[in-house]
Amino acid sequence: MDVSTTQDSGKTAPETGYSAPPPPPMVNYFGVDFALRLLLFASSLSALLVMVTSKQTELIPTSLPPPFPVSVSRAAKFNHSPAFIYMVAALAVTCFYSIVTMLTSALVISNPLPSAKMLFNMILFDALMAGVMASATGATGGVAYIGLKGNSHVRWNKICNVYDKFCRHIGATAAVSLVASIILVVLVVLSSYSLYRRSR
Amino acid sequence: MDVSTTQDSGKTAPETGYSAPPPPPMVNYFGVDFALRLLLFASSLSALLVMVTSKQTELIPTSLPPPFPVSVSRAAKFNHSPAFIYMVAALAVTCFYSIVTMLTSALVISNPLPSAKMLFNMILFDALMAGVMASATGATGGVAYIGLKGNSHVRWNKICNVYDKFCRHIGATAAVSLVASIILVVLVVLSSYSLYRRSR
Repeated sequence: MDVSTTQDSGKTAPETGYSAPPPPPMVNYFGVDFALRLLLFASSLSALLVMVTSKQTELIPTSLPPPFPVSVSRAAKFNHSPAFIYMVAALAVTCFYSIVTMLTSALVISNPLPSAKMLFNMILFDALMAGVMASATGATGGVAYIGLKGNSHVRWNKICNVYDKFCRHIGATAAVSLVASIILVVLVVLSSYSLYRRSR
Repeated sequence: MDVSTTQDSGKTAPETGYSAPPPPPMVNYFGVDFALRLLLFASSLSALLVMVTSKQTELIPTSLPPPFPVSVSRAAKFNHSPAFIYMVAALAVTCFYSIVTMLTSALVISNPLPSAKMLFNMILFDALMAGVMASATGATGGVAYIGLKGNSHVRWNKICNVYDKFCRHIGATAAVSLVASIILVVLVVLSSYSLYRRSR
C-alpha cells in the first residue's frame, strides 16, 4: 500500500495523494521541444543575417551615346522587393518568438507534468508562426524564381546572371526559412502529440 | 479506499463500466469542425475556378516599322508563372482534402467521445495543409504584387494596366486562398482545443 501511494503521487495527482497510475506512461517531450526551438532560433537568425547582408553593387553597361557614361553602378538590396521585406520581418519575429518560447520550454523541461493549457497555447502560437513563415517562404521563393529564370511572357528579365552574390544570399535565405517553417509544423505536431498522450 | 477507486476509474478508464462523469464537460466540436471544412471546401473550390478561368487575351502594340503588324495578340494565363501553377496544385489538393476530412468529420459528428487519435491525425494533416496553402498564398501574392506595381529597380514592368481581368482574378484567388489558409490554422487550433479539453 505504501509503495502504490508513492508511485501515484509522483505521477498524476499530487493534490489527492492516492490515485492510480494513468494508463499511458507520462512522457515529457520538452527536451525535444527545446532542441527544436534552439534549431528554429539558429535557422531564423542565420537566414535573417544572410538576407540583410545580401547587398551587391554591379556596374551595368548603358547603351547610350558617348556624352553619357559607359556604365552605371546599381545596387541590389533586399528592400527593393516587398516580398523580401516581408521575409525579413517574418524572420525577425520568428527569431524573437523562438527565444521567448525557448525560455518557456526550458522552465518546464524537468516538470513531470507540464500544464495542458501551456501545450495548447504553444500549438496556437506555433501554428500562427508556421503560417507566417510558410507564406514568407512562398513569397520569397516566388520572387526569387523570377529573378533566377525571368518570365519571357511578360518580359521580366532574369537578374541572377548579373547579381550572382545577391541571388545566392536570397536562395540560401529561402532554403533556410523553409527549414524554419518545417520546424514550426513539427513543433505543432509534437505539442499535439503530447496532448494526445495525455487525453482520455 | 472505495471512494478513491471510483474517482480514478471516472477520470481515466470509462471502459470499466461504472465511471463517474468526467471533471470538464465533454463537448464534441465536430459540428464547428464540419462547418469550417465546408467553408474550406467552398473557398478552395471557388479560388481554383477563379484561377483557371483567368485567361485574358490582349492586343499589344508593337513599335516596329510598317512591314510588321501594328499590334500582336498575347494571352495571359495562370500557367505562365510557376507560382500560379503551384497555387492551382495547392488549391486542388486542399479541395480534395476538404472533401475527405468533411466526410470523416461527419461520421463522428454525433459521437459523444470521438477518438483522440483521430483528433491528433487531424491536427497533423491540417498543419501540413496550412503550411502548403500559406506558402502558395505567399508565392501568388508576391508575384501578383510585381504584376500590379512592377519593380523599377530591376525594370520589371507592371502588367495589370494591360491585363486587368487577369489581375482581378489572380487578386481574388490570393484573397480567397488567404481565407482558406486561415481556416486551416483555425482547424488546427480547434482540434487541439478538443484535445486540451480532454487532457488530464
